[in-house]
Amino acid sequence: MASAASPLTSSSTPPRYAILVAGGSGTRMGADRPKQFLNLLGEPVLLHTLRRFAQPELGIEQCVVVLPAEQFATWEQLCREFSISIPHAVVAGGETRWASVRRGLAYLAEQPAGLVAVHDGVRPLVSAAVIEQTYAAAATHGAAVAAVAPKDSVRGLAQQGSYALDRSRLRLVQTPQCFELQLLWRAYQLPELPTFTDDASVVEDLQPIYLVPGDYRNLKITTPEDLIVAEALLRAELGAG
Amino acid sequence: MASAASPLTSSSTPPRYAILVAGGSGTRMGADRPKQFLNLLGEPVLLHTLRRFAQPELGIEQCVVVLPAEQFATWEQLCREFSISIPHAVVAGGETRWASVRRGLAYLAEQPAGLVAVHDGVRPLVSAAVIEQTYAAAATHGAAVAAVAPKDSVRGLAQQGSYALDRSRLRLVQTPQCFELQLLWRAYQLPELPTFTDDASVVEDLQPIYLVPGDYRNLKITTPEDLIVAEALLRAELGAG
Repeated sequence: MASAASPLTSSSTPPRYAILVAGGSGTRMGADRPKQFLNLLGEPVLLHTLRRFAQPELGIEQCVVVLPAEQFATWEQLCREFSISIPHAVVAGGETRWASVRRGLAYLAEQPAGLVAVHDGVRPLVSAAVIEQTYAAAATHGAAVAAVAPKDSVRGLAQQGSYALDRSRLRLVQTPQCFELQLLWRAYQLPELPTFTDDASVVEDLQPIYLVPGDYRNLKITTPEDLIVAEALLRAELGAG
Repeated sequence: MASAASPLTSSSTPPRYAILVAGGSGTRMGADRPKQFLNLLGEPVLLHTLRRFAQPELGIEQCVVVLPAEQFATWEQLCREFSISIPHAVVAGGETRWASVRRGLAYLAEQPAGLVAVHDGVRPLVSAAVIEQTYAAAATHGAAVAAVAPKDSVRGLAQQGSYALDRSRLRLVQTPQCFELQLLWRAYQLPELPTFTDDASVVEDLQPIYLVPGDYRNLKITTPEDLIVAEALLRAELGAG
């Protein structure tokens, strides 16, 4: 229960980085373009996401966008078309999500320390509060991910039929997933396993994963209905703001 | 693995009943009325739900709506206001969901056999296909519930931190939950347990629970965002229809 030393210098707040991973090819959506480029209230999904991380109060020093290399030209064109002035690096993704995050992380290899958030490029509705709380928890716990309690009952599949699980002991994991930079770096030097579904699963053998309350509105756009839902939620957010 | 006997008479299709449970008081929504009466594209949520079960191709003989007794007058008034001509019984609910379903079931006590679907009154977007498939599976397996795979990674809460679960072995449970009438009746004669979160958990000690593919659009309206989402999905459904 020892609290972390907090030197009374300007370096007491570790620098923050973000890796936005967008690997979609668009085939699962049945759409004419990758889901990160789909039109959400007039702007590409990925632009919405990037803007959330560029909010000045979050103080993120560098955003790294990981995209399939064959989508660089499209993204450059969208950046011109929408006059995107948010500074960010673009890095070529790999075959899997794991390989893509690893490449984004390699781009930050020069940085000696800090906190890095990994976030799905297709979660454009993440709030500043959830991002801030996840970074803050990672500063304390080393590894912190946003997660929400299931609203529905949960069952496990059995040999025959299924069995009830205690949903109060379960969480549905979202992003951002935030880590001490060196911890995430070490975790990504180990070989890829088929059980890696997110960054928490990559890190968990090295460090306990702290869960931060996420937000039900922080949805991942993976189906055509998700885009309809995201538009409605964003419209409500803008109307209320 | 013996298949059920299927007599070649008109009685080979067991009669179908439905219990729509609406116990909400509205306090959790922060709304001015219980969530089952909230306005969804111009009509009360519960009317949408009732209409889904009244679709003639489903051949449901009797719908039982379970409501808190103090909401009977409001529902009667809504039935007049919206000229609701769908035949249905109204039964007073109990203290818990379990007690409410038990009372709905008691109303059907005279029926010697058949299949009964229990459905949340605040899941107004359920499709005829999901309802049909759940009844059909219950006819074969005795107990069948609609469920979907989690879209997100799932973690369990541990003493310290959390641990990854294999989401491909998990399902998020929706309604309808369909059962042989006598089986559900027997299950509801046993004492209530704190682990009962739905009807599957009430029945599972007597009968394996078969899972039927549900639908991500079949959401339960429990938060203000859910109503926004339901409106957007319903609008899309109407636009496409």
